[in-house]
Amino acid sequence: MSREITGFSNPLVKRIRSLRDKKHRKREGLFLAEGLRILTEAREEGVLPEMLFHAGQAEEHPLAAALIREMEATGGDVIVTSTDILSKISGKDNPQALVGVYRDRLTPLQRIDRHGADIWIAAQSLRDPGNLGTILRTGDAVGAGGLILLDECVDPFSVEAVRASMGALFTQKIVLARWDEFIFWLRQGPGQLIGTSLKATLDYQEPRYQSPAFLLVGNEAQGLPAAYEAECDLLVKMPMMGKADSLNAAVATAVMAYELLNQKRNRRA
Amino acid sequence: MSREITGFSNPLVKRIRSLRDKKHRKREGLFLAEGLRILTEAREEGVLPEMLFHAGQAEEHPLAAALIREMEATGGDVIVTSTDILSKISGKDNPQALVGVYRDRLTPLQRIDRHGADIWIAAQSLRDPGNLGTILRTGDAVGAGGLILLDECVDPFSVEAVRASMGALFTQKIVLARWDEFIFWLRQGPGQLIGTSLKATLDYQEPRYQSPAFLLVGNEAQGLPAAYEAECDLLVKMPMMGKADSLNAAVATAVMAYELLNQKRNRRA
Repeated sequence: MSREITGFSNPLVKRIRSLRDKKHRKREGLFLAEGLRILTEAREEGVLPEMLFHAGQAEEHPLAAALIREMEATGGDVIVTSTDILSKISGKDNPQALVGVYRDRLTPLQRIDRHGADIWIAAQSLRDPGNLGTILRTGDAVGAGGLILLDECVDPFSVEAVRASMGALFTQKIVLARWDEFIFWLRQGPGQLIGTSLKATLDYQEPRYQSPAFLLVGNEAQGLPAAYEAECDLLVKMPMMGKADSLNAAVATAVMAYELLNQKRNRRA
Repeated sequence: MSREITGFSNPLVKRIRSLRDKKHRKREGLFLAEGLRILTEAREEGVLPEMLFHAGQAEEHPLAAALIREMEATGGDVIVTSTDILSKISGKDNPQALVGVYRDRLTPLQRIDRHGADIWIAAQSLRDPGNLGTILRTGDAVGAGGLILLDECVDPFSVEAVRASMGALFTQKIVLARWDEFIFWLRQGPGQLIGTSLKATLDYQEPRYQSPAFLLVGNEAQGLPAAYEAECDLLVKMPMMGKADSLNAAVATAVMAYELLNQKRNRRA
């Protein structure tokens, strides 16, 4: 059933807008995703928003119309509003025509089936939401099972992370865990823990990686703590031909993840 | 020679602050770089800023002290100021302790020696300054010669691009060119033009790439125009195992660039 909201001071508009803050997201267990592409990605994964805001003309696009129909068929809350109110919700002058409000998508570590994918990515104290979203997007591309966020990472449900993920946060499992919990869980079954380190001497193309592989990514500025590196089954480095000593965290993750995928493809070939 | 500036309304402070806008950067031919790491990277490339702002205590760090000494020895303009004024210049609450003002570092296309590197990166209508800076950083890492910016790309000297490059904009040549100029120049000598495309059927690990290789990256949302793809010597695709059909532009560039580097390493091995 659709309803209309036209007032800026409507309590629902204020409440939805507040989801741009982590504190409110956490309290409500909800987050925002914007734009037809990401909302369609979610729908193709069978995930509908709890609430859908659109500015009327969205219905003209067949994919948007299909989403709205499906929400209405399942009793979802579809709210027709103005572009100005969408601007207010999204904090952007040119808002996307669709904004969805979704329930948090966290998976407990104990519910992860490590055999469900050959590659898993674990990130420690990641600070940049763009990097986090980009890593999710790369995870989707290489067929990873999900992203395990260790220690104090940036919120995976921030608007920036959701946008950078391009919908991959609906296809990748997302886990929050402490390092000791993660290691305890990891060592209860098979799983090769692979870290990248400036101090490593082993080239990243040397080892024959095993599945399931757990790729461990460190904080953007500090890299991995020494104790975490010590726990890795393999510590590798990428060749650095220039003056800089490190890659962007999302880039390093992607170069490693494609090496894992390529080795798997070559074994099968 | 060092001088001190303490007034917020000092005309120099206003002028330097204005370099956060592209219009002013273009008019002055100057840009800002912040932080000891990036300024040291520049110094190691033999590039000193035209002006250096610091908040006094910067001199306590040996690398900062060395930079200040070198600027003073060469008659550079070293300005001691307050943290508040550094905040005003950088637009951040917690500014870096050092801000350098550098002369634009553009290289005309005709001055590029294509044999000077095995890999060159060309980007078309790149929109995101973080992607641009990250691509420069990756270019440095793979030993690329530089980045050729085609059509209307985001400004490589924006504060965000400079920061994301982590200093690589001082090690990579940066060229602005129109597509027709670039193709005319490219075809006057050796050079394999390699594009990535969703429509390609050739896997990116299939070809044996030749040097110098020119890696062509398209706009984040649209990819490459069809006419540009048609001009490529090779059109390749990366395997996509998930739901999404594309990678982040900086990630795709890095995965391709490391494939080029790895093939070169393997030929030599």
